[in-house]
Amino acid sequence: MNGADRLCDALLAGGVNVCFANPGTSEMAFVAALDRRPDMRCVLGLFEGVATGAADGYARMTDQPAAVLLHTGPGLANGLANLHNAKRAFVPVVNVVGDHASYHLPYDAPLTSDIESLARPMSSFVRRVTGPDDVGDAAVAAHAAALATRGVATLILPANAAWSETQPGPTPAPQAVVRPPVSADRVRSAAALLRKAGARAGLFLAGQAARQAPLDLAGRIAAKTGARLFGEVLCGRIERGQGVTPIERIPYPIDLAVDLLKDIDVLVLVGGREPVAFFAYPGKPSRLVGDHKQVVSLASPVEDAHGALRMLADELGAPSQVPSQAPSLARPAPEKVAPTGPLTNEAMAAMLAGVVPEGAIIAEEALTSIPSFYGATAHAPHHDYLMVTGGAIGVGIPLATGAAVACPDRKVINLQADGSGMYTLQGLWTQARERLDVLTVVFSNRAYAILRIEMQRMGIENPGRNARRMMDIDDPALDWVSLARGMGVDGGRAETCEDFARLLEIGLSQRGPFLIEAVM
Amino acid sequence: MNGADRLCDALLAGGVNVCFANPGTSEMAFVAALDRRPDMRCVLGLFEGVATGAADGYARMTDQPAAVLLHTGPGLANGLANLHNAKRAFVPVVNVVGDHASYHLPYDAPLTSDIESLARPMSSFVRRVTGPDDVGDAAVAAHAAALATRGVATLILPANAAWSETQPGPTPAPQAVVRPPVSADRVRSAAALLRKAGARAGLFLAGQAARQAPLDLAGRIAAKTGARLFGEVLCGRIERGQGVTPIERIPYPIDLAVDLLKDIDVLVLVGGREPVAFFAYPGKPSRLVGDHKQVVSLASPVEDAHGALRMLADELGAPSQVPSQAPSLARPAPEKVAPTGPLTNEAMAAMLAGVVPEGAIIAEEALTSIPSFYGATAHAPHHDYLMVTGGAIGVGIPLATGAAVACPDRKVINLQADGSGMYTLQGLWTQARERLDVLTVVFSNRAYAILRIEMQRMGIENPGRNARRMMDIDDPALDWVSLARGMGVDGGRAETCEDFARLLEIGLSQRGPFLIEAVM
Repeated sequence: MNGADRLCDALLAGGVNVCFANPGTSEMAFVAALDRRPDMRCVLGLFEGVATGAADGYARMTDQPAAVLLHTGPGLANGLANLHNAKRAFVPVVNVVGDHASYHLPYDAPLTSDIESLARPMSSFVRRVTGPDDVGDAAVAAHAAALATRGVATLILPANAAWSETQPGPTPAPQAVVRPPVSADRVRSAAALLRKAGARAGLFLAGQAARQAPLDLAGRIAAKTGARLFGEVLCGRIERGQGVTPIERIPYPIDLAVDLLKDIDVLVLVGGREPVAFFAYPGKPSRLVGDHKQVVSLASPVEDAHGALRMLADELGAPSQVPSQAPSLARPAPEKVAPTGPLTNEAMAAMLAGVVPEGAIIAEEALTSIPSFYGATAHAPHHDYLMVTGGAIGVGIPLATGAAVACPDRKVINLQADGSGMYTLQGLWTQARERLDVLTVVFSNRAYAILRIEMQRMGIENPGRNARRMMDIDDPALDWVSLARGMGVDGGRAETCEDFARLLEIGLSQRGPFLIEAVM
Repeated sequence: MNGADRLCDALLAGGVNVCFANPGTSEMAFVAALDRRPDMRCVLGLFEGVATGAADGYARMTDQPAAVLLHTGPGLANGLANLHNAKRAFVPVVNVVGDHASYHLPYDAPLTSDIESLARPMSSFVRRVTGPDDVGDAAVAAHAAALATRGVATLILPANAAWSETQPGPTPAPQAVVRPPVSADRVRSAAALLRKAGARAGLFLAGQAARQAPLDLAGRIAAKTGARLFGEVLCGRIERGQGVTPIERIPYPIDLAVDLLKDIDVLVLVGGREPVAFFAYPGKPSRLVGDHKQVVSLASPVEDAHGALRMLADELGAPSQVPSQAPSLARPAPEKVAPTGPLTNEAMAAMLAGVVPEGAIIAEEALTSIPSFYGATAHAPHHDYLMVTGGAIGVGIPLATGAAVACPDRKVINLQADGSGMYTLQGLWTQARERLDVLTVVFSNRAYAILRIEMQRMGIENPGRNARRMMDIDDPALDWVSLARGMGVDGGRAETCEDFARLLEIGLSQRGPFLIEAVM
């Protein structure tokens, strides 16, 4: 038994049985070990950002870490953008980075780099394995750290630690990790604040608190105190749709966000950190709530937010059920509509909202393309909604890929802007290879549309040639149907609502990957 | 005038007039400034690795830095793999990374990360601009550092330093940077060693020493002392072909490399560092020359290697011309051949070698696909040859892109493995957008072929299902012609030598990007 075998065994013992990989030479011993462990499902990405984004999607849907296998510093670097999104989604990932054999490092061979320095910004745990006998302990520690910090645990695995023989012995047992409960004191003070502030209080529900059971607890608390319920602008995962207590999403544009929260005197954070402006703008605030307002944390992203809400509901004597006559819960599901003519944002949003299947997983990275879709699906059949938590674009296709690996029986719908889709388009190949049930809709506006908006926010109304060349991607136009076919994914192009309806029907009625390019 | 204007002016004053960019919101002031500077050519990449790899290719061909413009930590991360290659090629790059406004950082907004920690491993200079009045000095320092260290100078530009007004004043003047000369003492001791060791000495010629004039000096030195001439396994840029003194390339496989150097007692490094094994393998050495051999540096990668060779030739009293009867220089150019039937490595290498045009730039990232091509082009018309210096795969398409921007009158031929090509395929779009004269040949062996070889080197002859799934990329097969068309690049698929000949003729006779998928 070598170090690589030991690593595989320790991961499997901890329940980690999916490995999203883009390995290289220094990982060959690990790949060979995977070969002897048929329980480990290996999912190949043709670019590292696909592997890391898929691990993020997998963890968002399972609350458990997948393993990622990357090759040395540059391979890690290619995966960092989506590890950043995973970090900001507070999901566990066990990130194994192969390195040169330890004795080879002093020679500074071409692929040598400072892996620790690269890993730290996106990792909550970094450990370099010291030798084959250290692999088991290191793997257990990384797995526990990923769960305890809800973050990326990076394990640097020198090639000789993987290929060398290790002492035989039992596979080290995984550590049990539970979310720490919040104190009764914290619950009592939050309750006092909510009682006092009434409708001028808000609960900010993020992370673990954005699932059905905690949201329903929040609904009961709101019924008791009048508090308003808010959610993240870019959520890791929110359960929503029919039967789930709805929350108000904080808007992306800074002025709208400030306006939404202007009457809130007390904001209680549950499962997330204080929402702030995504970017700074000249003359605008960084905080969305005024400096004189009260912001308190009931449960951090790693604490037991669900339990905290249960304690809070009890403390407040909230009703035992969400009032069923609440208008927000009683509204009908969106109906299937059949608009005609040119494709518009609104038409597509309505058409998509009308066909979201029960149990769908929606991975959306299309902030400017289909702004009304989120609202339109508030009462769609029960679904999960995943977004680009860290703002590192290029997460949509990988996220959908990982979610589909995690939930093979659920339809995954990836709503994808064309600009961000190009960063990790290689994920479509993994969808084809693994026969994943993902419908991708690419909104082809042929621009970094958000940059045009941001430039306007900077006061620049008429950008010139050099600036336009940085924002328009229409020359040449991308042909997403060709790109998808090139990676083994079938699809079609829609230029009218009729086309779009026909392609939606095809994409939703079959199993397996399909791509619709919606030309706007 | 704001900080962004000042930065543009300082870059232009230093001769930096190409900016490879993938900007985001925090770079909008810089993009607006570019708009007022039509002399700055902005080249957009749809992925950061395209921008950084293109800057590498540009610098390899011009010896001058281009600017790169990236967006915050994740954008930088996506560009790091090719900055790693640039670092290992010892080329100058001015890498501008936009960050949040400085006052916004304490709020830890979603896109916040430790940019310094990410930048340092691949940068020889990292500086965070402190405000609008610091931009000019910082830009001059970054430009000078890129040239002085032949490395990546990373300038972190907070959005408010870019958008805020700065003191009017003259554009700061660029610093003159020349390569430091080597001392006469060092030249004398190298000369003494070469005289003594005769044919048991070798000159290792890398970096600046791998151009025609210094190579011819090395040829004259070899004619005098009998020394052998060696070159890097993966060179940044080598001038070669008819009329250029040829050098022996150190092979990639460790056993062959050790064997090539086994009779060398003295290795003199000129413009490069000691060549070492690319990876460690159980039971194999890390160094290619034995520990008891003598390795001395005549000129480091940043020193004046060309001048050092001139001094060395004088010191040794080398002949004033390379002996023109040297068989290596007298050999005829490869002839155009027309094999028939199935495509093989050898047939493609011979066909390609026969059509390399005078002045071609060959960007090769196809280590396993076309191994005999390098040898076959030793006497092809004069050309430059660029490779994946740092072993971070995904450099070929971007490198070709940047080389074509640098040298619009020369044909660029990108020989590209399919596995590595997928990492940065987005570069094809930039080639189409900028109408770059690049012929891409993708060798479609549908495998990470090098991993199969490396696994054999580890002693594993028959990998099982899990391992094969990490190395074979045939399910589904990639369709490179579709992928290229999806990005506006025309091309065709070759399955026979006849197809290949026909497509080569099309690709070489037209200007502009064209792609051939060679199915092996």
